[in-house]
Amino acid sequence: VLIAFASDYGYADEFVGVCKAVMLGLVPDVRIIDLGHDIPPHNVRAGALLLVRSVQYLPDDAIVVAVVDPGVGTDRRLIGVEVAGGILLGPDNGLLAPAVALAGGARSVVSLENTEYHLPAPGPTFSGRDILAPAAGYLAGGVALTELGPVVDPAGLVPGLVGLPEIDEGGAIVGEVWWVDRFGNCQLNVDPAELTAAGAEPGDPVEVHLANGIRAARWVHTYADAKPSELVLLVDSYGLLSLALDRESAATALGLRAGSAVTLVPEGTAVTGTRGPG
Amino acid sequence: VLIAFASDYGYADEFVGVCKAVMLGLVPDVRIIDLGHDIPPHNVRAGALLLVRSVQYLPDDAIVVAVVDPGVGTDRRLIGVEVAGGILLGPDNGLLAPAVALAGGARSVVSLENTEYHLPAPGPTFSGRDILAPAAGYLAGGVALTELGPVVDPAGLVPGLVGLPEIDEGGAIVGEVWWVDRFGNCQLNVDPAELTAAGAEPGDPVEVHLANGIRAARWVHTYADAKPSELVLLVDSYGLLSLALDRESAATALGLRAGSAVTLVPEGTAVTGTRGPG
Amino acid sequence: VLIAFASDYGYADEFVGVCKAVMLGLVPDVRIIDLGHDIPPHNVRAGALLLVRSVQYLPDDAIVVAVVDPGVGTDRRLIGVEVAGGILLGPDNGLLAPAVALAGGARSVVSLENTEYHLPAPGPTFSGRDILAPAAGYLAGGVALTELGPVVDPAGLVPGLVGLPEIDEGGAIVGEVWWVDRFGNCQLNVDPAELTAAGAEPGDPVEVHLANGIRAARWVHTYADAKPSELVLLVDSYGLLSLALDRESAATALGLRAGSAVTLVPEGTAVTGTRGPG
Repeated sequence: VLIAFASDYGYADEFVGVCKAVMLGLVPDVRIIDLGHDIPPHNVRAGALLLVRSVQYLPDDAIVVAVVDPGVGTDRRLIGVEVAGGILLGPDNGLLAPAVALAGGARSVVSLENTEYHLPAPGPTFSGRDILAPAAGYLAGGVALTELGPVVDPAGLVPGLVGLPEIDEGGAIVGEVWWVDRFGNCQLNVDPAELTAAGAEPGDPVEVHLANGIRAARWVHTYADAKPSELVLLVDSYGLLSLALDRESAATALGLRAGSAVTLVPEGTAVTGTRGPG
Repeated sequence: VLIAFASDYGYADEFVGVCKAVMLGLVPDVRIIDLGHDIPPHNVRAGALLLVRSVQYLPDDAIVVAVVDPGVGTDRRLIGVEVAGGILLGPDNGLLAPAVALAGGARSVVSLENTEYHLPAPGPTFSGRDILAPAAGYLAGGVALTELGPVVDPAGLVPGLVGLPEIDEGGAIVGEVWWVDRFGNCQLNVDPAELTAAGAEPGDPVEVHLANGIRAARWVHTYADAKPSELVLLVDSYGLLSLALDRESAATALGLRAGSAVTLVPEGTAVTGTRGPG
Repeated sequence: VLIAFASDYGYADEFVGVCKAVMLGLVPDVRIIDLGHDIPPHNVRAGALLLVRSVQYLPDDAIVVAVVDPGVGTDRRLIGVEVAGGILLGPDNGLLAPAVALAGGARSVVSLENTEYHLPAPGPTFSGRDILAPAAGYLAGGVALTELGPVVDPAGLVPGLVGLPEIDEGGAIVGEVWWVDRFGNCQLNVDPAELTAAGAEPGDPVEVHLANGIRAARWVHTYADAKPSELVLLVDSYGLLSLALDRESAATALGLRAGSAVTLVPEGTAVTGTRGPG
């Protein structure tokens, strides 16, 4: 069994290591990998998108532990969600929702309330250490999900916050930046099929409307196809469109970050009205 | 057997990975977890506190390797300390002392001088790679601690630098910040029992005297109990009092960092004299 | 079998974790260690030097996966190189070359073109996830290197970019900074034997010529031998000369970074001409 662990705990403190110690104390031979712990603090949306990009690459029966939990210590629930490929554990705040949807939806959901499977906490719970890590350990060791708490209705879960693009009357694609990666590439929430449906083909110029102006871009095949300083659109390794510059950060050059509005206007598209907050 | 590894090596260089390669070269199936490698460079006190927060969560018979070693290459000793729950390895500079005390004190201490268990070094030793990692590997593989060097008197070890709070004549609690976590919460060296002894109860207002002024705070149960911008005191997940703001960094807002003086004055306490450097 | 993984992927995104998930999905019980993922983005030279410092400490039969790949998606090859101690996988852009040379040269080289051993990619390949991680997994699981693609001539590989120092007519050693570590120590590409050949001995003063001036230094045994603010030269734990200050960053104090020119002039050496750019 593999446990995949993602959080906004960062690497400076011992949070991540202590959670792993708790897991390994329960199941000494479980494999644990880090999907990343530098999710911006309390940024549920960034965490949800990281999970979406990751879960399809996990082996079957993986257990995902995800912690981005600004509501820690309140009455928000911690849940375990069984999907086709495994089990996801985390707060019920929308963090797991898009990954659950991608995996085909919840087969069953449990609220992790059974204190027999919690670690005793000296203060308010550190939910990763005291509830989620033990839950992952017990599940990896063969305890059934339904032992960990009462079954709850999946329909009552907090939904995800991840938006899809819209097509305006002129045919422009009104989207946004979902993710700025380490290299400054800006992944959009736009499928290349939408650009094709709007009449563009690889090789075509595309107008990119941003909050701070309009930029010309070209739809290319790979990063290295970009000429120096040329803004390009390409299908990234997740199958979505990204804005990029060759060996430069497009995010820095264009002033973009996760959530920034981006509208794509293929050449020849009639543009009307505004597109996106501006 | 589990090896738990903490250092000020950072993540940019290969220091951590090379130490793990040495351990795994000796014991291919040992589990290694990172307690954190972003301890501020040469900050023995921050490392000691990280260990204190961590060791109670490690499984029995864990081996802790800790490296914050400004004296590398001098005649400071490298030691192995056996405690009730396992063995700690590191420099004799106070780094291990508080964790050893928390674990009930040293059962035996060895100076890691036996060069048969060292890696040959091309220059002055990189003690993590050349002495501590091999020691952890050999111990995990079943070598006795006493094989690694001569037994030394625990009474001669360098003590820890971690201070406890004082109560001044007026009943105020004169403490300090032990740790600023990733979220900007400021853990104090103050046990909630000390605030209770001073006459406060959860829900009460508490004056917080800092170097740059006096702030009003309220003792609450959890982060989310704080109103927007309200400074609160709460028992954190380690059982100590922390200063916090909801979804904001208290450290940034108050100008606090590890070591900053903080005096708590429960309402109704007679305050006399100065408290803390200031 | 041990897989050692180094990249410029950073820790904020899920790149590293997803590559590990792919490896563990193929070989559930393989050991994976991180040699570091904060290689500066696209900096092939820094990655090559990190590998050189690391490979000698890996156990026999280790598989190294290295990704610093500014040419991703172009026609640069991905290669697997068998050396005396194991196998290195990465782009053919010079990244692996110095480590291969240190390991005694390539025994055989394969171009990783056999798509049966690739992961299907939704867009242009994310080569770490789609080609290199599966290659490492299959190799760890017992597949022969020659199954992964056609054998290519080692003589045709892109050479490394790592330069050796020169001795000018006056006997000065014209070198450069290879690496600035976490503590600000500046490792030079200079072997202590070269300083000895130039007439210096440990304890001697050595002039250090930098782009921004000339500094006096002393050749000492260990960091702690430096007096406060005294610049020293010492043999570091890799056997090369480093410029250092005790408990301070020499790189910050001197304005040095990887690639900076540094000329060493032992006392009594006749200096003629310029030495090094700058």
